[in-house]
Amino acid sequence: MGTPIRVTVWNEFRHEKNKEHPASKVYPDGMHAAIAEHLQAQPDIQVRTATLDEPEHGLTDEVIAGTDVMTWWGHAAHAEVRDEIVEKVHQRVLEGMGLICLHSAHYSKIFKKLMGSSCSLKWREVGENERLWVVEPGHPIVQGLEKEYIDLEHTEMYGERFDIPMPDRLVFISWFAGGEVFRSGCCYQRGKGRIFYFRPGHETFPIFFNPEIRQVIANAVRWAAPQPSAAITWGNVKPLEDI
Amino acid sequence: MGTPIRVTVWNEFRHEKNKEHPASKVYPDGMHAAIAEHLQAQPDIQVRTATLDEPEHGLTDEVIAGTDVMTWWGHAAHAEVRDEIVEKVHQRVLEGMGLICLHSAHYSKIFKKLMGSSCSLKWREVGENERLWVVEPGHPIVQGLEKEYIDLEHTEMYGERFDIPMPDRLVFISWFAGGEVFRSGCCYQRGKGRIFYFRPGHETFPIFFNPEIRQVIANAVRWAAPQPSAAITWGNVKPLEDI
Amino acid sequence: MGTPIRVTVWNEFRHEKNKEHPASKVYPDGMHAAIAEHLQAQPDIQVRTATLDEPEHGLTDEVIAGTDVMTWWGHAAHAEVRDEIVEKVHQRVLEGMGLICLHSAHYSKIFKKLMGSSCSLKWREVGENERLWVVEPGHPIVQGLEKEYIDLEHTEMYGERFDIPMPDRLVFISWFAGGEVFRSGCCYQRGKGRIFYFRPGHETFPIFFNPEIRQVIANAVRWAAPQPSAAITWGNVKPLEDI
Amino acid sequence: MGTPIRVTVWNEFRHEKNKEHPASKVYPDGMHAAIAEHLQAQPDIQVRTATLDEPEHGLTDEVIAGTDVMTWWGHAAHAEVRDEIVEKVHQRVLEGMGLICLHSAHYSKIFKKLMGSSCSLKWREVGENERLWVVEPGHPIVQGLEKEYIDLEHTEMYGERFDIPMPDRLVFISWFAGGEVFRSGCCYQRGKGRIFYFRPGHETFPIFFNPEIRQVIANAVRWAAPQPSAAITWGNVKPLEDI
Repeated sequence: MGTPIRVTVWNEFRHEKNKEHPASKVYPDGMHAAIAEHLQAQPDIQVRTATLDEPEHGLTDEVIAGTDVMTWWGHAAHAEVRDEIVEKVHQRVLEGMGLICLHSAHYSKIFKKLMGSSCSLKWREVGENERLWVVEPGHPIVQGLEKEYIDLEHTEMYGERFDIPMPDRLVFISWFAGGEVFRSGCCYQRGKGRIFYFRPGHETFPIFFNPEIRQVIANAVRWAAPQPSAAITWGNVKPLEDI
Repeated sequence: MGTPIRVTVWNEFRHEKNKEHPASKVYPDGMHAAIAEHLQAQPDIQVRTATLDEPEHGLTDEVIAGTDVMTWWGHAAHAEVRDEIVEKVHQRVLEGMGLICLHSAHYSKIFKKLMGSSCSLKWREVGENERLWVVEPGHPIVQGLEKEYIDLEHTEMYGERFDIPMPDRLVFISWFAGGEVFRSGCCYQRGKGRIFYFRPGHETFPIFFNPEIRQVIANAVRWAAPQPSAAITWGNVKPLEDI
Repeated sequence: MGTPIRVTVWNEFRHEKNKEHPASKVYPDGMHAAIAEHLQAQPDIQVRTATLDEPEHGLTDEVIAGTDVMTWWGHAAHAEVRDEIVEKVHQRVLEGMGLICLHSAHYSKIFKKLMGSSCSLKWREVGENERLWVVEPGHPIVQGLEKEYIDLEHTEMYGERFDIPMPDRLVFISWFAGGEVFRSGCCYQRGKGRIFYFRPGHETFPIFFNPEIRQVIANAVRWAAPQPSAAITWGNVKPLEDI
Repeated sequence: MGTPIRVTVWNEFRHEKNKEHPASKVYPDGMHAAIAEHLQAQPDIQVRTATLDEPEHGLTDEVIAGTDVMTWWGHAAHAEVRDEIVEKVHQRVLEGMGLICLHSAHYSKIFKKLMGSSCSLKWREVGENERLWVVEPGHPIVQGLEKEYIDLEHTEMYGERFDIPMPDRLVFISWFAGGEVFRSGCCYQRGKGRIFYFRPGHETFPIFFNPEIRQVIANAVRWAAPQPSAAITWGNVKPLEDI
C-alpha cells in the first residue's frame, strides 16, 4: 500500500449549527463529520475537515497544498466563500487535485468557475423517491455496487435541464417519482485535475450515512486522486527542429 | 432554398401486414407511410420508402447512392436483413449519409455494426407513460419544440443500462412511470456520416403520428444531411516536407 | 433565405493603430475590417464591428442583445476588457449566442471564463510554417474546403499542452515546422451557445485575408448561429406526477 | 498488492519468422516477446503470449476467459484471424476485458468491429522522426513520463484523417517530420471494457524496446484492467413502481 490519499472534506456547516433546522438533528456534528467518518475508515485514505467559519474557511495555503482530493458541500452561503480562496482551490485543481462536488455544491463558486456555465437546474423539496441508475457499469466510480441502481427513499429533487458542459463521462442518471430525470454523476477533467459532481446529499435527509452513497464517494476519491506526471512547460519555447 | 434532402424511409413492414397484429390497425399502410407523410410535407425534403420484402430490401445500389439520409425501423426480422446490404449502407454512412435509427432499430445489424457494442437494454410492454426530457436545449434536433419535454401517454419502456458507446451528444433522457430512465436521443459521428438514435416509435402505439415526434425526426434529418467537404485520401503518401 | 445572421466582429484594435507595429502595415484598418469584409460579402450574414476603445468596448446592451454570433480577437489588452462587459457576453453565450475566439483570444477573459481552465500554451514567434489538418471531414466547419489541410506559410507557433477542457469536437490539428502540434479548431457547447476556438490569426501575418481561413470563419459563423428552442424553466417546480 | 492483472500479449508473429524480413533481426523472438518482457517485470502484472499460428490463434476459451487485458499486434494477416475468435474477444471486451491495440492493429478485425468505422489512414515508410505529444497530462496512461513528449527517431508514419470515432479521451498527438499529424493515443469504452489504441510499434524498428513506449503500455494495462461491478440485467423487466 502506497502513501494514503489526503482528503479534505469541506462543508459550509451552517444548517447543522442552527438548532431550528432539521439538519441539526440529522447531522448534529455536521455533514462533514458523516462524510469523513466513512472515508477515514478506508485504509488508503487520510481525512481532515474544513468549514466555512474557520479562518480562511479552513483552507490555508498549507491545507490546500497538502490535499489530494477535496470534497465540497455548500448551499446557503456560497456567496460568503471568499474569491481568493476559490482562486486558490481552482488553481490547485488545475494542478491535479481532485474535487468532488456534492449536491447543492452545483451552485458553489468553485464548481461554476470550473464549468463556465450557469449550473442552474430545477428543484423541489417534498422528500420524494430518487433512483440513481448506473449508466456506465465499467467505471471505477461504481465499482463494487451490488445493484444497478441506488434507491433513496426520500430526497430533494433536482431536474433537467442541468446547465453544465456535457460531462466527459456520465455515470449516473436519476429518476424522480415526480416525473423528472437528472444527470446525477458527472465526470470532468480540467487542467490536470479530475472533478466529480454527485447529486445526492440534501441536508435534511441522512443520505451521507447511506452505505452505497458512501461507497460511491470513496470510489470517487480514488478515481480523482492525482498521479505523478511530466511537468508541463508553458510560454515561449525554442524550436525542436531546424527551421 | 437549395437542393432538397433525399430521404429513404426504411421499414421492416411485417407487423403491419399481419391482420392479427395491433400494428395493422395503428399503421394500416405501414410505419414508413406515417414517417414519410410528415417528411414529404417539408419543402426541403424529398422522400421515398423501402421495405424488407422488396427486392434487395428496396435498397438497390442506386437507391443507396441517391440517399442523403436514411431512417431505419426494424424489430422482429433484423436477422433477415442481408449482410451485403448492411455492408453497403454502412459504407454509405461512412461516406457521409445520415442515418436515423428508430426505436427497436437499436438491435438492427446496421446500428450494432456502427456502434461496436451489444446495444442491449431492458424493456417492458405495458403501455406506460414516457416523458422525454430535453437535456441539450441548444441542439438543432430540438429546434422549435414548445416544451422542455415530450410526453407519450402509452409506450413500450426501454431502460438503462443501454449498452452503447457514450454518445457524442446526448439530447434526450426518458423518464418512465415504472421507474426506469433511458438515453433516448443519441448523436454519433462515424466516418463522415451522422447517426441519430431516437427511442420512440413502438409498433402498437401511434407515436409516428405525434407532432412533436415528427418534428424531432424532421429536425434530425436536417441535422444528419451530408455536406460537401474535401475528398480524403487514404493509403501511401509522399512527404509534404523535405526529410 | 431567412433572416440574416447578425455578427459582431470584436477586436482589441491596438497593435494596428501603432505605426511602429508591423500590424499597422498588414491590417491598416484593423483585423476586424479584414474579418468583416469577407463575412459581409455573404448573403446570409450581416456584420458590425466593435473595438476595445469604443465606449463600453462597443458592446452596449443593445449590441449584445442584437448579436447572433460574436467573433473575438484580443492579445495585449485582455486585462483592460471590463469584467461587467465580459459578464454580459458570457450570459449571452449561455442564452444561445455563438462565440468564435480567434488566435490569442485563447487568453481572453471571456474564453477563460467559458472554459474554466488556464488556457495556457507554448508559443514561438519566428514565422514558421503551419499546416492545419482536418480531422473531422464531416463537420460543417470544414464544408467546402478543397484540400485536407490548410497551409500557412508564416505564422506564430502555438504548441501543446493547450490547457483546455477536452473539446466536444476537435476539427483541426496543426503541425508546425519547429516540431510542435496543436488542437487548432475546437468546438464547445456552453449553455445554449456554441463556441469555436480557431488558432490562426496572428497580427503580423495577413492570415485574415487567406481565403481558406475566411471560409472556415464563415462556416463557423453559420454553425454557431443560435436556433429557436423551448424556453427553459429553472428553479422550484411542481411535480408532474402524483407523489 | 492484490491479484495480478492477467495479460495476454497477442501477436501475428509472421514478419519475425521470415528470415528475409528486417523484423527477424529486430525482434528475433517476436514482438510479443519484447512486449511481454517488460510487462512480466512488473510486480502487479502476469503475462502470457499467444500468436496467430497456434491452434485457435492461442486464444482458447480458457485463455480468453482468463485474460484481464489483451494487447494486439497484427499487420499482414488480419484476414486470417478467424471470425469466431474475433467474436469471442469482442464479447469479452464488452464484458470488461481491456484491449490495447498497437500500431497496425488499427486495421485488425477486432479493432474495426469495436470502432464501427473504416479505421483508414495515410502511411509512409521512410523511417522518419515522430514526436508523440502528451495532450492530457493528468491521464493515468502518461503517469511517470519524464518529458512532455516521446521522440522516436525512426518510424513509419501514420497520418490524419484517421477514420475512427472521436476518442473518449485523446492522450497523444503525433508530429511527423514529413508534415503530418496523427491521433496516436486514443481511449474508448465499449460495454464494460476499456480500449486503448497506441500508434507506435512498427515491425522494422525497435520501438517495443523503447523504455517510454514500454512504460505507456504498462500504464495502459493498469488503466484498462477490469474492475468488479454490478451485474447488469438485460431484457424484459417488471416495473419498480406501481403503474
